[in-house]
Amino acid sequence: MITALVISYKGTGYCGWQVQAQSPRPSVQKTLQTAIETVIGCGIKLSGCSRTDSGVHANEYYCHLDRYVEIDCDRLPLAINKYLPDDICVKRAFTAEDSFHSRYFAKGKEYMYLVWNSRLKNVFYTDTAYMYPKRIDVDVINAFGKGFEGTHDFTSFMSAHSKIKDTVRTVWYFRAERDGDFVRFYTAADGFLYNMVRIMVGSALEICSGRITLPIEEIIERKSRQAAGKTMPAQGLYLNKVIY
Amino acid sequence: MITALVISYKGTGYCGWQVQAQSPRPSVQKTLQTAIETVIGCGIKLSGCSRTDSGVHANEYYCHLDRYVEIDCDRLPLAINKYLPDDICVKRAFTAEDSFHSRYFAKGKEYMYLVWNSRLKNVFYTDTAYMYPKRIDVDVINAFGKGFEGTHDFTSFMSAHSKIKDTVRTVWYFRAERDGDFVRFYTAADGFLYNMVRIMVGSALEICSGRITLPIEEIIERKSRQAAGKTMPAQGLYLNKVIY
Repeated sequence: MITALVISYKGTGYCGWQVQAQSPRPSVQKTLQTAIETVIGCGIKLSGCSRTDSGVHANEYYCHLDRYVEIDCDRLPLAINKYLPDDICVKRAFTAEDSFHSRYFAKGKEYMYLVWNSRLKNVFYTDTAYMYPKRIDVDVINAFGKGFEGTHDFTSFMSAHSKIKDTVRTVWYFRAERDGDFVRFYTAADGFLYNMVRIMVGSALEICSGRITLPIEEIIERKSRQAAGKTMPAQGLYLNKVIY
Repeated sequence: MITALVISYKGTGYCGWQVQAQSPRPSVQKTLQTAIETVIGCGIKLSGCSRTDSGVHANEYYCHLDRYVEIDCDRLPLAINKYLPDDICVKRAFTAEDSFHSRYFAKGKEYMYLVWNSRLKNVFYTDTAYMYPKRIDVDVINAFGKGFEGTHDFTSFMSAHSKIKDTVRTVWYFRAERDGDFVRFYTAADGFLYNMVRIMVGSALEICSGRITLPIEEIIERKSRQAAGKTMPAQGLYLNKVIY
């Protein structure tokens, strides 16, 4: 058996999950690994469910150790949290089969993108939401968003810098909900290409505002990054759920 | 006529509304004043509705200038916001009679205290909520909280360092609401003594947990700071509304 963890983190102060040699900011992985090693008194290898980008947050992120920890799963989160900074929290610990891998065993993920939809900034969400001043009609977004659903080649919604060859993914849903001046976008898929959620949200907003006139189905068909909308900034993006 | 503003701010990076000679952190007042002076091109005097403590936030804070600004009230907030940091926002501008004073004209204020009620920290509310691990029963709080209401001498709920002589205030309500793992305390009064809201919330929590066995009515009657509970930290406190 091995020990696995469910964590949350505010990504603002980090270079992402993984160590980035060129970044002055620490990685979530290394910060968490050090805290776990302090608690259990020996070196470990820590593997995560996803590489999140710099500034991206996680409400629910899965990772696993290369060993079993001899501390009760009910007590382990608080024990590790004692050695973590305020912006990383271990929410739950569980044991899994030796073969478990938080990344390869994931059947899919849900991301949330948080928009503060107002002409006036929200001083409490500077690092944790993206401010968008034009009024968003979530009914329009939800009608358009159906076009993402299903199995497609999502080349148009992948960062032009990505070298990945297998660009077919199955999107389960893409929808938006309004909560006062907040708009939350939710999308889940069996996997996402590099920057895919951020380009999906950017495209939906630009279709909604009339800046893009192609429907989503046609943007997908073009298989060209130029056909889609802008990449939304990292600060609004949250890894929200991992499905096993 | 003079120009008045409604602002919001996240207090974490500030020494409070007013300049504190001994603090290395800037004041909200001075930061806002500089932004306004940049927009209108001349020096102003800026007066606020309350001295908020270091780290305390405001959802709605009123202040007024010593002059009338020749820019349309609909456009003034965005014009000033351009020169403000992300953690201060002008939400609204309005004109008032020359005699208007944001502090002396206020009939009362509502404060909100935000508690994250969980054994696990919320990584997104490090600076903007107070984490309290013991389960809070809001029905119990609301039953006790009635004891605050009415006109009383609130000496027991005033910082022992305060020199104020007139310690009688009228509290309109004190209540708590649960929203998932968040608990919001709301209290409004014709005025609050120094640290009064923070001591009221601290006392309510200690009565709820059984740490204090006196009812609120009796704590009030003692007129002694020792009879009440702890002063809650600044990070959970928000000036929420000002009533004119």
